Amino acid sequence: MTTENIKDRYELAIIGCGPAGMAAALNAKIRNKDFILLGTEYGGSKLAKAPQVENYLGFPKISGLELRRHFQEHLQSMDIQAVKQKVNAVYPGSRFTLALPEQVIEADAVILATGVSAQKVFPGEAELLGRGVGYCATCDGPLYRNKSVAILAYAAEGEHDANYLAELCTKVYYIPFYKEVGVLDPRLEIRRAAVKSIMGQNKVEGLELAGETLTVDGVFVVRESLPAEQLVSGLALEQQAIKTGPDFSTNIRGLFAAGDCTGSPYQLLKAVGEGATAALTAIRYLDELKQQK
Amino acid sequence: MTTENIKDRYELAIIGCGPAGMAAALNAKIRNKDFILLGTEYGGSKLAKAPQVENYLGFPKISGLELRRHFQEHLQSMDIQAVKQKVNAVYPGSRFTLALPEQVIEADAVILATGVSAQKVFPGEAELLGRGVGYCATCDGPLYRNKSVAILAYAAEGEHDANYLAELCTKVYYIPFYKEVGVLDPRLEIRRAAVKSIMGQNKVEGLELAGETLTVDGVFVVRESLPAEQLVSGLALEQQAIKTGPDFSTNIRGLFAAGDCTGSPYQLLKAVGEGATAALTAIRYLDELKQQK
Repeated sequence: MTTENIKDRYELAIIGCGPAGMAAALNAKIRNKDFILLGTEYGGSKLAKAPQVENYLGFPKISGLELRRHFQEHLQSMDIQAVKQKVNAVYPGSRFTLALPEQVIEADAVILATGVSAQKVFPGEAELLGRGVGYCATCDGPLYRNKSVAILAYAAEGEHDANYLAELCTKVYYIPFYKEVGVLDPRLEIRRAAVKSIMGQNKVEGLELAGETLTVDGVFVVRESLPAEQLVSGLALEQQAIKTGPDFSTNIRGLFAAGDCTGSPYQLLKAVGEGATAALTAIRYLDELKQQK
Repeated sequence: MTTENIKDRYELAIIGCGPAGMAAALNAKIRNKDFILLGTEYGGSKLAKAPQVENYLGFPKISGLELRRHFQEHLQSMDIQAVKQKVNAVYPGSRFTLALPEQVIEADAVILATGVSAQKVFPGEAELLGRGVGYCATCDGPLYRNKSVAILAYAAEGEHDANYLAELCTKVYYIPFYKEVGVLDPRLEIRRAAVKSIMGQNKVEGLELAGETLTVDGVFVVRESLPAEQLVSGLALEQQAIKTGPDFSTNIRGLFAAGDCTGSPYQLLKAVGEGATAALTAIRYLDELKQQK
């Protein structure tokens, strides 16, 4: 599905197209809901990396890659497409507003199936979030006009942010954690170094790398996907996972969660089971919404 | 596995070998636990009856029978056998004691994956349980020596009970709800009639059938499997399902539950997800038990 095919509004948005999101999509499709399945790694990146899966009931000793292919073919056979778009933010309201990279869409209900990030949070990142640490250069960039920033990038997507910030800021450091870096604005300074911490008392003052310390006013972190709690402000957590009821509702009305993002054990069967259940709960919620109108 | 192969004691007993029990068995096997998988319908009778399953991620449009075959082959490939034995009662204690039809076994931990019975509870059954209503003729039969009883049988297993009771009781009515009735003691009186209610104030006094009322002192109900709450005395329920925490522990230490018996939605993916998680919780419990010794 290309960007042009994305509608402005859906009944249900499923964020994350790993096993939990895929399982949710099956039930949404069967129940004829108008939904969109969004995510950057169709089928799940963790699954693809598993050399062998033994405990997905029905598939004895199968590689993660092969199992993912079965999952994808299942969705294809039901004409379900995943939209390869990152969601930058979810804003609750009378409807949910989802900020995609180049457009905004609305949904009556949202299922978070964003998984857990294997990428660590940097020391200082959580403490200085909103006080110099950000995740969306397009949103927050203008605040750093004529200032210095650093971009910590796990994905090539960070290059767009960096090139944009190079136009605004006096100094932009680009610190990539992936291999093939593309075309960058010559004003950017690239560093290949481990990050020790984001420094600052009440706001970002610097970035401590292995070997040097950079003086910066802002730090943007670009990951493949955002941790769910950074995606939706006000989302209640418990032991660093999204807190849900047995029906996989969260503390925010109309918002549901499933899979690894609801906590351990990080198992495939748990993820798909929760995805299926969360979808049914969301569908019931949507049906009740309709009746109220 | 024949009766002779059943050991006296296991670390873990999984009761029910439908999808939830099967998924639990996978994790128990992978984690090298000494376990037994018990049940009367290997692979689940409900699954076998599903004409088409669309939402078990990985298998597009598959018949329940075919999907069950995949599940069974998966277990076979890992050398997991289901023991076709009904469990009549589970007694908590320093260890759990499980009453099988012809022997007693012990387990340090138990996972209930007994599903939900599609067979209705008769009016009066719950009210008069233990006051004339029973589920185990072998256990309670002697109480009805020289009295009248009725056996309501959903399964041919009731015939053994009936023949046994024919030797003790003055009058035994046999009311089968299945088609092919085998060899019965000639003293038995067979009725093919719908049951309206089990009658009695403080104890069973009669059985109301469509068309006649039988005077009896006891009523035995023989079903394929027992509802979990009748299997384990003191088990906490919520909305007629077993009450569990998010890790699928119950109110009884060392006892866990998964699948349809924990409540709706009655979906395959939910069942296998809970089975997998319940097994991991049980394994952690067993590991902690060991450390305490």
